[in-house]
Amino acid sequence: MNNKLLTVGTLAFDTIETPFVRVERTMGGAANYSALASAIFDIEQAIVSVVGEDYPASFLQILSEREIDITQVEKRVGKKTFFWSGRYYENMNERETLETQDGVLQDYIPKLPSHFLDASFVLLGNQHPQLQLEVLDQFVAPPSLIVSDTMNYWIDHSFEQLKEVIQKTDVLTVSDQEAFAITQEKVLLKAVEKLQQMGATYIIIKRGEHGAMLFHEDKSFYTPALPLCKVCDPTGAGDTFAGGFVGYMAQTGDISFENMKNGLVYATVLASFCVEEVGASKLLTINKEEVLRRLFSLKELTQFDIKVV
Amino acid sequence: MNNKLLTVGTLAFDTIETPFVRVERTMGGAANYSALASAIFDIEQAIVSVVGEDYPASFLQILSEREIDITQVEKRVGKKTFFWSGRYYENMNERETLETQDGVLQDYIPKLPSHFLDASFVLLGNQHPQLQLEVLDQFVAPPSLIVSDTMNYWIDHSFEQLKEVIQKTDVLTVSDQEAFAITQEKVLLKAVEKLQQMGATYIIIKRGEHGAMLFHEDKSFYTPALPLCKVCDPTGAGDTFAGGFVGYMAQTGDISFENMKNGLVYATVLASFCVEEVGASKLLTINKEEVLRRLFSLKELTQFDIKVV
Repeated sequence: MNNKLLTVGTLAFDTIETPFVRVERTMGGAANYSALASAIFDIEQAIVSVVGEDYPASFLQILSEREIDITQVEKRVGKKTFFWSGRYYENMNERETLETQDGVLQDYIPKLPSHFLDASFVLLGNQHPQLQLEVLDQFVAPPSLIVSDTMNYWIDHSFEQLKEVIQKTDVLTVSDQEAFAITQEKVLLKAVEKLQQMGATYIIIKRGEHGAMLFHEDKSFYTPALPLCKVCDPTGAGDTFAGGFVGYMAQTGDISFENMKNGLVYATVLASFCVEEVGASKLLTINKEEVLRRLFSLKELTQFDIKVV
Repeated sequence: MNNKLLTVGTLAFDTIETPFVRVERTMGGAANYSALASAIFDIEQAIVSVVGEDYPASFLQILSEREIDITQVEKRVGKKTFFWSGRYYENMNERETLETQDGVLQDYIPKLPSHFLDASFVLLGNQHPQLQLEVLDQFVAPPSLIVSDTMNYWIDHSFEQLKEVIQKTDVLTVSDQEAFAITQEKVLLKAVEKLQQMGATYIIIKRGEHGAMLFHEDKSFYTPALPLCKVCDPTGAGDTFAGGFVGYMAQTGDISFENMKNGLVYATVLASFCVEEVGASKLLTINKEEVLRRLFSLKELTQFDIKVV
């Protein structure tokens, strides 16, 4: 097992409206959020993605400054970068997609950097399942840990391919609503059981402000989200979570359930930073000391000794 | 400090409709749920409430069999017991009240049993704030721990009296939505801060399937709900939670924040039983061994050691 992490997903422009803030064409996309979160760990990381000729060099520089390999971030001349815009409502739990422009994603075929063909860790960020499968096909040896994300759109429009992704996935990270949509179940434990039957060995259920749960065989682990004074923009929190999780796993090289608990805790802490500022901006400034401080807050928040009466 | 707990609240008939089940005129009301939960602890407990002449002796016997003092459960001739009916929707998180009949609650003035005038623990179950205040007025010495519950109806219709209750309360147990409604805040930490300013020293935020949080000064503690295979009926889960919490506090006689964490954990476990069967039926059969087993499940679910990387 090596500490190489291949992160696959979109690099995008996001236009975001919340009750508190509005930004236009900010740096977004699953791969950006995930890779920035993973980058706090001591690992080798590469991104596989595609951008249009309108994508600023400064955005890519943010990645290369963090020693993220971007040799397979394809720049397609005459095409436009993937664009997403959305609006959040009062309570920040629901959002509406206002517009998406596929741009460069049409006919894109991902290609792995040659020195990551043996990566032990892969994060298949939310993207067309077909692209996720094409990435997996290129590995010379099966990665030790494949972490996959998805979203409702693919559940509705590419379900057969998504099932194949899930079958090949070690750790599936989905929201509870996505788990219900995939399995047609309404009770969480039943949905988890079905996802396990579909081939995902580990299931992470993301519940936003209500935290996250990890399931494996008959074991489970729960971590709440950190209560925050300020929630500015939830965009990318799930991607940040996934990147934090797999980054921690890659650095520690221990893919046991016990160690995944810590992965969930690191992921939760990193996502807590993400939502405090608009877009990915807060992820650009965090350091390990701050992360550690919140890790201990999370421990303080959840730990207890049973007093038997 | 003694281990006497005075539980104040309604004894009622409930007619409940969920996607899975329908029952008519089952044993309900905050005091029933709370008292049955508290009754698993080794404490002295009395209920202050009122019923109509239609209330079955068998329902009261369930309480007296558990050594709950019902001498101040007033039976009013020619009046009808408080009646509530409600319907739950698909996801069980939202419900609609179909009907309430105040019946005996009109003009009712609660009266404390003489040997509970010195009770150290009081649970003011969800009820008209005026009744809650009348109970507090009768104590010969201030109780060590006053735990109060309420609901949106009183926030909307008796806010001034509710504020007085909160001011006199040690531990306020409310849902996040109720906390937002009372404080006109939208961010949990800000709502909690305002509730503290209003006089509640400890705040418990109940989040149903997402668990519960305890706040005190700048400290906080979180416990998730236990993931369950079967959620049959959420009616009374909040009352069960409150009863479990205060029952544990009364038995241990330690009202520190540290010990309240365990109170939250016991409360969570008791509420997890409540929702598995319709009405209060599951609370009639639980024993300490089952409670203990779930306490350890909850510990297993949440405990971790930080691995600093």
